[in-house]
Amino acid sequence: MLDEQLTTESNWTVDDDHKADSPKADHSATLREARQASLAGRTMRFVLRSAGNPAIEIVLWSGERISTSMREPIARLHVKDRSTLLKLFAHPDIEFGEAYSAGRIAVEGDLTGLIEEVYRGQRVTQRSNSTESPIEQRLRRSRSNTFSGARDNIHHHYDIGNDFYALWLGETMAYTCAYFSTPTATLEQAQVAKMDHVCRKLRLRSGEVVVEAGCGWGSLALHMARHYGVKVRAFNISHEQIAYAREQAKRQNLSGQVEFIEDDYRNIGSAPNSRYDAFVSVGMLEHVGPRNFSDLGRLINNCLTSSGRGFIHTIGRDRSTALNAWIEKRIFPGARPPSLKEMMDIFEAADCSVLDVENLRLHYSKTLQAWRANFERTTDRAAKMFDEKFVRMWRLYLAGSEAAFNTGEMQLFQVLFAPRVNNEIAWTRDDIYQY
Amino acid sequence: MLDEQLTTESNWTVDDDHKADSPKADHSATLREARQASLAGRTMRFVLRSAGNPAIEIVLWSGERISTSMREPIARLHVKDRSTLLKLFAHPDIEFGEAYSAGRIAVEGDLTGLIEEVYRGQRVTQRSNSTESPIEQRLRRSRSNTFSGARDNIHHHYDIGNDFYALWLGETMAYTCAYFSTPTATLEQAQVAKMDHVCRKLRLRSGEVVVEAGCGWGSLALHMARHYGVKVRAFNISHEQIAYAREQAKRQNLSGQVEFIEDDYRNIGSAPNSRYDAFVSVGMLEHVGPRNFSDLGRLINNCLTSSGRGFIHTIGRDRSTALNAWIEKRIFPGARPPSLKEMMDIFEAADCSVLDVENLRLHYSKTLQAWRANFERTTDRAAKMFDEKFVRMWRLYLAGSEAAFNTGEMQLFQVLFAPRVNNEIAWTRDDIYQY
Repeated sequence: MLDEQLTTESNWTVDDDHKADSPKADHSATLREARQASLAGRTMRFVLRSAGNPAIEIVLWSGERISTSMREPIARLHVKDRSTLLKLFAHPDIEFGEAYSAGRIAVEGDLTGLIEEVYRGQRVTQRSNSTESPIEQRLRRSRSNTFSGARDNIHHHYDIGNDFYALWLGETMAYTCAYFSTPTATLEQAQVAKMDHVCRKLRLRSGEVVVEAGCGWGSLALHMARHYGVKVRAFNISHEQIAYAREQAKRQNLSGQVEFIEDDYRNIGSAPNSRYDAFVSVGMLEHVGPRNFSDLGRLINNCLTSSGRGFIHTIGRDRSTALNAWIEKRIFPGARPPSLKEMMDIFEAADCSVLDVENLRLHYSKTLQAWRANFERTTDRAAKMFDEKFVRMWRLYLAGSEAAFNTGEMQLFQVLFAPRVNNEIAWTRDDIYQY
Repeated sequence: MLDEQLTTESNWTVDDDHKADSPKADHSATLREARQASLAGRTMRFVLRSAGNPAIEIVLWSGERISTSMREPIARLHVKDRSTLLKLFAHPDIEFGEAYSAGRIAVEGDLTGLIEEVYRGQRVTQRSNSTESPIEQRLRRSRSNTFSGARDNIHHHYDIGNDFYALWLGETMAYTCAYFSTPTATLEQAQVAKMDHVCRKLRLRSGEVVVEAGCGWGSLALHMARHYGVKVRAFNISHEQIAYAREQAKRQNLSGQVEFIEDDYRNIGSAPNSRYDAFVSVGMLEHVGPRNFSDLGRLINNCLTSSGRGFIHTIGRDRSTALNAWIEKRIFPGARPPSLKEMMDIFEAADCSVLDVENLRLHYSKTLQAWRANFERTTDRAAKMFDEKFVRMWRLYLAGSEAAFNTGEMQLFQVLFAPRVNNEIAWTRDDIYQY
């Protein structure tokens, strides 16, 4: 839409450049700036109207203020120079993040609120954005989750340093949506409650054997072993995370009960005695990609006993949609939160029945709020570990994610399933809520 | 598979016919019968092996007994004559029901158990039967759910007489899966518990306005009005059911709160003031057909307020599968229980997020057990209303459905959803379980 706008509205950038070079360019710099800003302002006003009049104010480099909303602005977006504005018009999805990280745009006020306004405005003007152009598809394919591609993608995000994550994830080091059983629960309480919520849904029984696909820093695996008396074999291709998890297992005297394996989930079936009472995966499916879902389903089919249960916790979408281009480029290469419809390929290939789906999207928004608060308290240390640009990048990622869950752009699905032949499934869900 | 068998194994039916007519047909009738039975027996043995050796015994007209299972037979299937067996080989899906209804085959022992054995055997030998031939598709299309087609289809099943349904549905006249909050609950208790389960999931608040698509005999609409203080507008195209429901509303003094409308759910949007706080549909989606799901979604999108909730309760499948041909022909013309994947078309078109899915398949098996027990106690009255053939037909339908839910051939999905923009959704599911 923005691209089209630049083409059809006017070729004002070329105009300006031309005039600057022409012999008639004898206007004072101030006047030219004012005229440019005004042209930029008019275009910006058109863009804001097309975006559903979000309650934000744009402040241009000249000081000109633009807003098309009748409401009080939630935040002010400062654009530092003309070239940033042009890039923003051309590639808004990627350039907003690039410019924000580089400090070429700045937000005064509520960053999360600003992004929510943009999401809500888009909702009004464009109902669906579920299709990707062939070029977008090809670009994505190049970052596909082959065994080595997946290793690179995971390394990019999860291996940047356990110390950095320790600054703001809290003591559980759980990097997935928490479960706030009451709105006043702390992040730590909510992360523990999430682990119990998962174990209760799976109806884990002492002595059972569980396989975990993508175990992060190991908190769930250790929690299951300690509190539910199960044996766990946990897979992860992040070297840093596995090292941390093994260290935790040693400290907690759980090394005999929990085996952390630095390997791709696709090799779960290659391990000896690879039949399990439960398959669990919390926060890995986002990195698998819908094209691999049937294979994942067949893997689950092969590894579950006939009385087994499976559980997948993942960020999802209401319908198949590409991840925001900047997030995919800078934060999560190769990631794609799936729609529930896409997820069904897993359960169909697994010959499993879906037993229970719960959507916890507002819990993720609350989780992200807590992470962001921790993050903002420790940005000086993060800046020392990396730099200021990194801090801005992660601020935007955390705020943008919170906005996405608040506005329903993103969902959080917990899906419990079991082999179709399993008649030992729970009779009701009452037991999950009997603490 | 059976068709192929007849072609490749031998053309014994032609053989027999030929020999019977030939001048050499001077063997005694007894000898010929024995030889035929033996040939039939050998073929039957092959069929049983191909079907995964179900623990059933076939008793042929000659008295010959055939079983390929090492286990004790759960039931005996008596085949009365050779022509029935041939038809059974050629079109097992439709002919089993036809022959059973006509009394040309009879089952000694556990009818439900026999069908379960067949389903479980099929599971072992054929993993998927999700594709229909073009001819099957065309046949189905001819019974499609156009406005008048739907009226015919619904009339076929639901208008055969309220008195008949009253014999075995119990006093709630609820003809959908009950919710047995404890295994010892009676059918009546479980039907009332189901209605409360639906209302609690929808978080109905006094004064809200609810639209119900496909309201059966009206029990849920009246329950919502009486116990949750909501206004209900309930649609149904079954004339008999609407008449019954209106009568009940009068008796319970709820005519001012519940409006029963004899019309197609597709006209929900045509009614005046057609914006609702909740959309609810229990046991109608089976009759809608996946091809109409996007339209249904758009209808929901148009009728729900932004703080609204939706709820669909339906028989479903693990993957897209045609309904058993006999059930579709004799019991439910035009019906097709959808897979969850197919159902996602509704929520995507509705711009809604799925909040909660619960699978109650074993509750439906228990519901069907209770219905069947009631039915068997009143077969003399049903036979007087219709005839013995009708009684056998319904016995098979009830037993077969129970077997389908017991073996996971059928699922029962309850799906709660809400417009994506609705942030007033329930924080957890605890409240559903606080009685």
